[in-house]
Amino acid sequence: MAMMRAAAFIEPGRIELVEKPIPDVGPNDALIRITTTTICGTDVHILKGEYPVAKGLTVGHEPVGVIEKLGSNVKGYHEGQRVIAGAICPSFTSYPCQDGVPSQDGAYLTADGTCSCHGYKATAGWRFGNIIDGTQADYVLVPDAQANLEPIPDGLTDEQVLMCPDIMSTGFKGAENANIRLGDFVVVFAQGPIGLCATAGARLLGASTVIAVDGINERLTISQKMGADVTLNFREVDVVEEVMKITKGRGADSAIECLGTQKTFETALRVLKPGGTLSSLGVYSEDLVIPVSAFAAGLGDHKINTALCPGGKERMRRLMKVIQSDRIDLKALVTHEYKLDDIVAAYDLFANQRDGVLKVAIKP
Amino acid sequence: MAMMRAAAFIEPGRIELVEKPIPDVGPNDALIRITTTTICGTDVHILKGEYPVAKGLTVGHEPVGVIEKLGSNVKGYHEGQRVIAGAICPSFTSYPCQDGVPSQDGAYLTADGTCSCHGYKATAGWRFGNIIDGTQADYVLVPDAQANLEPIPDGLTDEQVLMCPDIMSTGFKGAENANIRLGDFVVVFAQGPIGLCATAGARLLGASTVIAVDGINERLTISQKMGADVTLNFREVDVVEEVMKITKGRGADSAIECLGTQKTFETALRVLKPGGTLSSLGVYSEDLVIPVSAFAAGLGDHKINTALCPGGKERMRRLMKVIQSDRIDLKALVTHEYKLDDIVAAYDLFANQRDGVLKVAIKP
Amino acid sequence: MAMMRAAAFIEPGRIELVEKPIPDVGPNDALIRITTTTICGTDVHILKGEYPVAKGLTVGHEPVGVIEKLGSNVKGYHEGQRVIAGAICPSFTSYPCQDGVPSQDGAYLTADGTCSCHGYKATAGWRFGNIIDGTQADYVLVPDAQANLEPIPDGLTDEQVLMCPDIMSTGFKGAENANIRLGDFVVVFAQGPIGLCATAGARLLGASTVIAVDGINERLTISQKMGADVTLNFREVDVVEEVMKITKGRGADSAIECLGTQKTFETALRVLKPGGTLSSLGVYSEDLVIPVSAFAAGLGDHKINTALCPGGKERMRRLMKVIQSDRIDLKALVTHEYKLDDIVAAYDLFANQRDGVLKVAIKP
Amino acid sequence: MAMMRAAAFIEPGRIELVEKPIPDVGPNDALIRITTTTICGTDVHILKGEYPVAKGLTVGHEPVGVIEKLGSNVKGYHEGQRVIAGAICPSFTSYPCQDGVPSQDGAYLTADGTCSCHGYKATAGWRFGNIIDGTQADYVLVPDAQANLEPIPDGLTDEQVLMCPDIMSTGFKGAENANIRLGDFVVVFAQGPIGLCATAGARLLGASTVIAVDGINERLTISQKMGADVTLNFREVDVVEEVMKITKGRGADSAIECLGTQKTFETALRVLKPGGTLSSLGVYSEDLVIPVSAFAAGLGDHKINTALCPGGKERMRRLMKVIQSDRIDLKALVTHEYKLDDIVAAYDLFANQRDGVLKVAIKP
Repeated sequence: MAMMRAAAFIEPGRIELVEKPIPDVGPNDALIRITTTTICGTDVHILKGEYPVAKGLTVGHEPVGVIEKLGSNVKGYHEGQRVIAGAICPSFTSYPCQDGVPSQDGAYLTADGTCSCHGYKATAGWRFGNIIDGTQADYVLVPDAQANLEPIPDGLTDEQVLMCPDIMSTGFKGAENANIRLGDFVVVFAQGPIGLCATAGARLLGASTVIAVDGINERLTISQKMGADVTLNFREVDVVEEVMKITKGRGADSAIECLGTQKTFETALRVLKPGGTLSSLGVYSEDLVIPVSAFAAGLGDHKINTALCPGGKERMRRLMKVIQSDRIDLKALVTHEYKLDDIVAAYDLFANQRDGVLKVAIKP
Repeated sequence: MAMMRAAAFIEPGRIELVEKPIPDVGPNDALIRITTTTICGTDVHILKGEYPVAKGLTVGHEPVGVIEKLGSNVKGYHEGQRVIAGAICPSFTSYPCQDGVPSQDGAYLTADGTCSCHGYKATAGWRFGNIIDGTQADYVLVPDAQANLEPIPDGLTDEQVLMCPDIMSTGFKGAENANIRLGDFVVVFAQGPIGLCATAGARLLGASTVIAVDGINERLTISQKMGADVTLNFREVDVVEEVMKITKGRGADSAIECLGTQKTFETALRVLKPGGTLSSLGVYSEDLVIPVSAFAAGLGDHKINTALCPGGKERMRRLMKVIQSDRIDLKALVTHEYKLDDIVAAYDLFANQRDGVLKVAIKP
Repeated sequence: MAMMRAAAFIEPGRIELVEKPIPDVGPNDALIRITTTTICGTDVHILKGEYPVAKGLTVGHEPVGVIEKLGSNVKGYHEGQRVIAGAICPSFTSYPCQDGVPSQDGAYLTADGTCSCHGYKATAGWRFGNIIDGTQADYVLVPDAQANLEPIPDGLTDEQVLMCPDIMSTGFKGAENANIRLGDFVVVFAQGPIGLCATAGARLLGASTVIAVDGINERLTISQKMGADVTLNFREVDVVEEVMKITKGRGADSAIECLGTQKTFETALRVLKPGGTLSSLGVYSEDLVIPVSAFAAGLGDHKINTALCPGGKERMRRLMKVIQSDRIDLKALVTHEYKLDDIVAAYDLFANQRDGVLKVAIKP
Repeated sequence: MAMMRAAAFIEPGRIELVEKPIPDVGPNDALIRITTTTICGTDVHILKGEYPVAKGLTVGHEPVGVIEKLGSNVKGYHEGQRVIAGAICPSFTSYPCQDGVPSQDGAYLTADGTCSCHGYKATAGWRFGNIIDGTQADYVLVPDAQANLEPIPDGLTDEQVLMCPDIMSTGFKGAENANIRLGDFVVVFAQGPIGLCATAGARLLGASTVIAVDGINERLTISQKMGADVTLNFREVDVVEEVMKITKGRGADSAIECLGTQKTFETALRVLKPGGTLSSLGVYSEDLVIPVSAFAAGLGDHKINTALCPGGKERMRRLMKVIQSDRIDLKALVTHEYKLDDIVAAYDLFANQRDGVLKVAIKP
């Protein structure tokens, strides 16, 4: 039995490189040899035991690689082809998929009569490193490959497309969920990798003033390259007051929350105009409070939209098209590179946010 | 100077009938002689001092009447014509009006550089009995009359159209904000007058299973007449559990909150499928908590939409058309009738929800 | 090799019952034993040679039946289960499916560099009786069965659900595409089976005045049962003039075209208000003319939406839910019943529209 | 009585400078002293007698100027303030305005029971130089000024905002009506001033490949500055074939028609993918033909949206915000400048499209 290396969740505090068999390929699967993958903030939640996964599971959900073997039903691809697949890797055949929320694939299908959405496991469309073995390994098995494999256009490097499976898809979804129109003021809270992509997405969708908020000036500098017109360091200014000045008391048309804390969520509500939209991307680990004063007592015609990262080959095709058309350059987000053998060190750097790290390329 | 009777807010706990001059009519105004008006739950908040208005203001915002005098610029109407006007009586010329949220008229225009939405006074589109004299009087002055007066079609009585200015417009907006599609399960929380209209609206917009929730069986019985397929008394059953049974674990496609409490809001979230919509109509008097477990940690593709009652003559025309076409019969909601002279007694009955009261017709 | 009966297209003018092998079942397929199917207007186009299909192809695309055999990858069903599948039977994994138009499955995948939509074969999501063997047979093979099989709820007969795979799905899509809002006037042109479902759909989605147009009074009578408020026989009145009277010169908010002729399309445009929507369902066999006078020279803010019938198990689930909830009763549309052995006679009746036929149940 | 100069329609073939009284200012009006205006393609239709207006009417609908006098009801502005107003100058109080189509203001209000949209006069929201005196004059009277006047932000010149009232608003509406999503291919037909703005709008709204089509290479060069990624000269290449190559047979996601001819409309349909959107801006002077082969016989899930230029002060505010934010620079479109006294010569140049003219600034 051929073996491979894989970064597995051992117990809270421990993700380690182990040996596993290279998986068998069923008729609808594809086996991908990973050439580059990365570590996500969610993986750090897994490492810390804050987001539960099965012990022994291979973590990671952002694959760039080469087709090693195709299932017998998977048509239109060839072995050796460079491909990516979304972090969220839905079947596209389930009820939620056909109902317009493929990221929630599996959510409506529970044996015991209670809806699977009420708890952290809502998100059964997210499979890699969540409910099946993930991408921080030599190989990953892609299920429903016909729906999920997307060839990388010639001329794009691994680093250029590494954000597509999760970071860029999520950040752009935050912008897409914000109901942006030409002439809008849009405020983006937190300028980590997802927030930077939300900033870029808001600009690409027509916002006329993109206001980026963070507490780290280096990130605010990068946000300007991504499309921010104005940057606000929340350690230095009162964000609500500044947004009201910039918008002349109108309030922002939309706010995009990219962190997952009470403070960012609440401030996002407070900067909104009546009728404005709060697009929320954060993974919240505690109950949220909506202050009645930030919510016009429920009479403000506000909208709040949440999202899980979209997946699927059409999504991946579109994201790579945006990159290919020079609308965005995400290479600057890949600040460090590690070998798969050194992944424990990579987690250590990333979890502790040392050395100005944004994203780490992992090379098997 | 000709005088009239008007129910005025004196101080918390006191709304009384006073004498006021009949208002002068400016070029864009119309003076309406009230033939029927009613008391709203919001008026009770005003009475109790929970929702602040200026002392001496005439309360009430639901006018049915006859044109007494037209401003010089108001065209296409005639004196003596029976008309209604929305509780929310926007100018339709302001920035928010042109920006798609006429109910928030005035919200973006503040002198002091802070957005007027952040607090109870967000809702400057609501003028009658909020920022100008209201309808519980012999006469009411309608500003921007060209945009707000709508003739009552022949054959409809005052009682038939009395819900249009607020209750029906609000309840229907709750259904319109719920993203209803054919085949949907929709749960409506609280079956007071607005909730009953939301129930009717959800049915009219194509929901295939409308589930009405309340704690009073009489109201649940009326909800069936309004279109509910299933009724749940929250004092007798676990609502989340029942909805999961009815939907076979799928969860509801939408929930409409019509009360304004933590419990209804939270339960509305908990019955939703991933990707579902919570349409909120309630006026919340305390901070809301979103439990992370009811919200899939922010990853459930949920939507939350709030609304203030829509106004304007086109809205009133459409609502009366729905009534005229026999799609709904709201006469059953008018359970009591009082003379204007007895309005203090009417408030007493309504505020204490005695005698199965739903809505009270007030006749000057 | 086990054999079965199948109605095959032989040549223009001839559809005949032939013997074919019962198909083999691949891993993603299901073999359905047909218990009831029907003949569609499109089948008559095929019979006449107006819509080209391969010689020898089994025709028919509306299956009601029982699972005979499941492919090895198809989970959550059991043999013997009563099911339907949509006439349009997409994979749900292709680019068009993930791009929001599953009915156009396959359309973007052409070998020769020209888009497959430019011609009659656009509609590769429609497979039964178009590009694979259809349902007028003892058995039909359902591809991508996991995405397309939907169990029939207990208590519903074959006749009750026979319209779901095509007629009801198409007619309802016509209403869904018409941008209907509460209070709307909606005109539905042609009251054949699809038009009757569009009439019902327009009512279910909230239209307040549904105006049904046809030239046969019997059909107009049925349209009233389906939800029409007003009926117009175009042989007796000027339809544009009548609609303008009914709407007091406003024009209709929407028009739904359900036939596929210049006259119905053009009249549908002429009844619209500025800003109105024309939802087109017809299959046009000749070039259409848009008279500049019916189109406000392109300045009328008009919308024209076309559609192909939606398929998939979620769609079928929703349509059967509508029936189960007593929102519609389509049994009256099944006016005749034939044995499969007599299908040539059934075509003869249906193609010539004799004996007041609406739809024919075919029983193998 | 104070007099002013005005360019009036005399008879087909003749627009001449005449003397007229400076208009009186009613309570809801504002009198604007024109500092810059321009000539539109529609004015040339008027000149040629192809679009009928009353004899003696002052033509022109694109005002940049200074407030000379305010009506007594117009608040929040001051005399001497630099302002613009949209070419389409709706009341915002009428039924169509409240129904979501302010450009069609007045359309639903007809005395004789026939809808006013059925013919060229549909567009009663367009008032300047159509149904009231226009802007090619020393002064223009703006009706419903509270809804229509928008102050010019400090730092923007007349030439920078001259396109806002019509050209930019129309071109951007064409892009807004095209349902553009990130990653889309969008084809824009005709690169005159409106087409160039549609090209810019498509890019601003997130199209990843904007394909500009025209027959004049100089215009295609300018289209690249406006945001086109690819240019096609229809005199040199087969546009359908090229688009299919660029999109690899997929077809374009959207096409925007900016001329008003059979050829551009038909080609726009032919480049679309199934499910694609045709956004039409052209003013058609002859009946249009939709070839059945370009329309998938009505089964292609196509959408066709038409539009009239949006107006109102919020629209003007947003457009000037886009300019202020350096998202677009339209100064290059103003190729010539004339004095009002020389307007006959300006018409001659513009009508005959001499000297590479795009737009002409007229200075009273």
